Amino acid sequence: MKTVFSLAQLAHAPELEISDGQLTPAVEIPSRAEIVRDEVIRRRIGPLWTPQDFGRAPLERVHTPDYLDFLEGFWGRWTEAGRTRDAFPYVLPVRQLRPTPTPLAIDGALGRYAFDTGTPLTAHTWEAATASANTALTAARFLREGDRAAFALCRPPGHHAAADYYGGYCFLNNAAIAAQWLRDQGTARVAILDIDYHHGNGTQSIFYDRSDVMVLNIHADPRQDYPFFLGHADETGEKAGTGYTHNWPLPLGTDWTGYAAALEEACRWLGVYSPDVLIVSLGLDTYEADPISKFRLVSDDYLRIGARLARLGKPTLFVLEGGYAVDALGLNCVNVLEGFLAG
Amino acid sequence: MKTVFSLAQLAHAPELEISDGQLTPAVEIPSRAEIVRDEVIRRRIGPLWTPQDFGRAPLERVHTPDYLDFLEGFWGRWTEAGRTRDAFPYVLPVRQLRPTPTPLAIDGALGRYAFDTGTPLTAHTWEAATASANTALTAARFLREGDRAAFALCRPPGHHAAADYYGGYCFLNNAAIAAQWLRDQGTARVAILDIDYHHGNGTQSIFYDRSDVMVLNIHADPRQDYPFFLGHADETGEKAGTGYTHNWPLPLGTDWTGYAAALEEACRWLGVYSPDVLIVSLGLDTYEADPISKFRLVSDDYLRIGARLARLGKPTLFVLEGGYAVDALGLNCVNVLEGFLAG
Repeated sequence: MKTVFSLAQLAHAPELEISDGQLTPAVEIPSRAEIVRDEVIRRRIGPLWTPQDFGRAPLERVHTPDYLDFLEGFWGRWTEAGRTRDAFPYVLPVRQLRPTPTPLAIDGALGRYAFDTGTPLTAHTWEAATASANTALTAARFLREGDRAAFALCRPPGHHAAADYYGGYCFLNNAAIAAQWLRDQGTARVAILDIDYHHGNGTQSIFYDRSDVMVLNIHADPRQDYPFFLGHADETGEKAGTGYTHNWPLPLGTDWTGYAAALEEACRWLGVYSPDVLIVSLGLDTYEADPISKFRLVSDDYLRIGARLARLGKPTLFVLEGGYAVDALGLNCVNVLEGFLAG
Repeated sequence: MKTVFSLAQLAHAPELEISDGQLTPAVEIPSRAEIVRDEVIRRRIGPLWTPQDFGRAPLERVHTPDYLDFLEGFWGRWTEAGRTRDAFPYVLPVRQLRPTPTPLAIDGALGRYAFDTGTPLTAHTWEAATASANTALTAARFLREGDRAAFALCRPPGHHAAADYYGGYCFLNNAAIAAQWLRDQGTARVAILDIDYHHGNGTQSIFYDRSDVMVLNIHADPRQDYPFFLGHADETGEKAGTGYTHNWPLPLGTDWTGYAAALEEACRWLGVYSPDVLIVSLGLDTYEADPISKFRLVSDDYLRIGARLARLGKPTLFVLEGGYAVDALGLNCVNVLEGFLAG
């Protein structure tokens, strides 16, 4: 299985995030990607490729042009305004408030394009996020060219990013961009299975009214954990997409028993839908030692997940999402890949 | 003119707020109210009254019961969860995200009921906010009893608080609660003129579809300054309220010349509407030395504002909102009152 990765993804290197009303050490840090890359090499998962540049067009198929302009131009405007620290928004357009017209003031623009205030926007976020998206796109191209599977070692992650807002450490929705690109290349049916601990709200909202990209999420109950405001069991798509979104919100403390049951149900939907390509939004924060999450999967469970996904028999694109127990991240991530290859 | 004030309003005493991604000293602090009270006494504006307790009913006429439950029960839940510092939300339900079901997790609930992440919720916020609302209600009662004018020395302020979210240092919308109470007591037509530097988004959204409470706002252009997402000139009400909301967004740097023109226009609307009671949401952050604002009014301008409002000849309830140049806050605030009394 080919792995795609670029050093440019390390350029986004926040020191602090805002959590519990405090500035605390950032958890979505460059070493996450490095430890996964090192484990991919150590265990000989396959060759390492650097991403091609797909340009802006595939990003615009998922994100709005004004949002992309904002992300690309942000740091220049921010520093022009005399600001030097990583940026956090502080006022957001919730109900009755208007996201447009987009504020001219940089702090207003920040809030207009965000749903979360703990995600630092840094000097090199755009460079890293586009490299991350190109990583997913390059891996998707390998599938178009006939590979059975590929691993997009994406960082920053993507699944919380929606068409026009960022948050949850995510800026560009790598999995959604790859899914849309595959569609545009002629792949008829794509499914995204998101197994990150946190609901992939961005991915769900991007494809919510569509039947050509099925979106399945297994995650912590949003009543109990981030992102709180999407990922309930009653969200099953709308309009043409009705029935093409499914959610398995699981209680805090879920271990393999509860998790495997949800995974089995998701796999049943995938069997019925029979996608031409399966994209796995691969978060490893379901791990028992994850510092910000509360499931209880153990490292061997990731071998089982990979093996179960392999049994679906579909061309499969793994896209890295979250996972913050950095020391075990390489082991757990590569366990999924190895379980898949052996399955 | 009677002034209403309660020491309970000082109980909300945050040390820090989040601004520009940093924890910075709070600017909405108890001494704001004390300096205004001292100036009211020094310049013999009239007697000082403490508020009566109007109970929960008048609050529920403006805010949703679940929002009030959240505010009232918050600190107990927060400390029960082992948290001790002032609280700030970090993820908010913007577009495509669902405010309901309300998250069980306290951090989720925080975001569900907020639109701003810089406003600290403290151990005594509920006590101070209800005292502030009772202050406005007590002053409104003086008008019902025949007084020509009254001053509700409210703190925390209210005009950014909407039916079910807080922010901008505001929790309960004191002016809206007083307006609704007057309506419920039989006052047929109420107008709220908000002259705080920041748009009163909460007040506007509460009455946006109604013709019995006109809402006029003179404030910094939201494209340029907080709250960014409401207060544009094209917002003029909806449904039965169409034509009963008007906004005068003014550019940064506005001095008396520009300000007076907008005030004159607002007064024309008030003349046509001819409210039975005029409520003035009295922010003093239009002052040239305000630390977070960018208009250029000078202290004498506040005498002029008071005199102009007096010429409307309406029973008038002044409700204190923002103003963060603490040293000059008493002077500027009482200048409005004195200008009114002399006018």
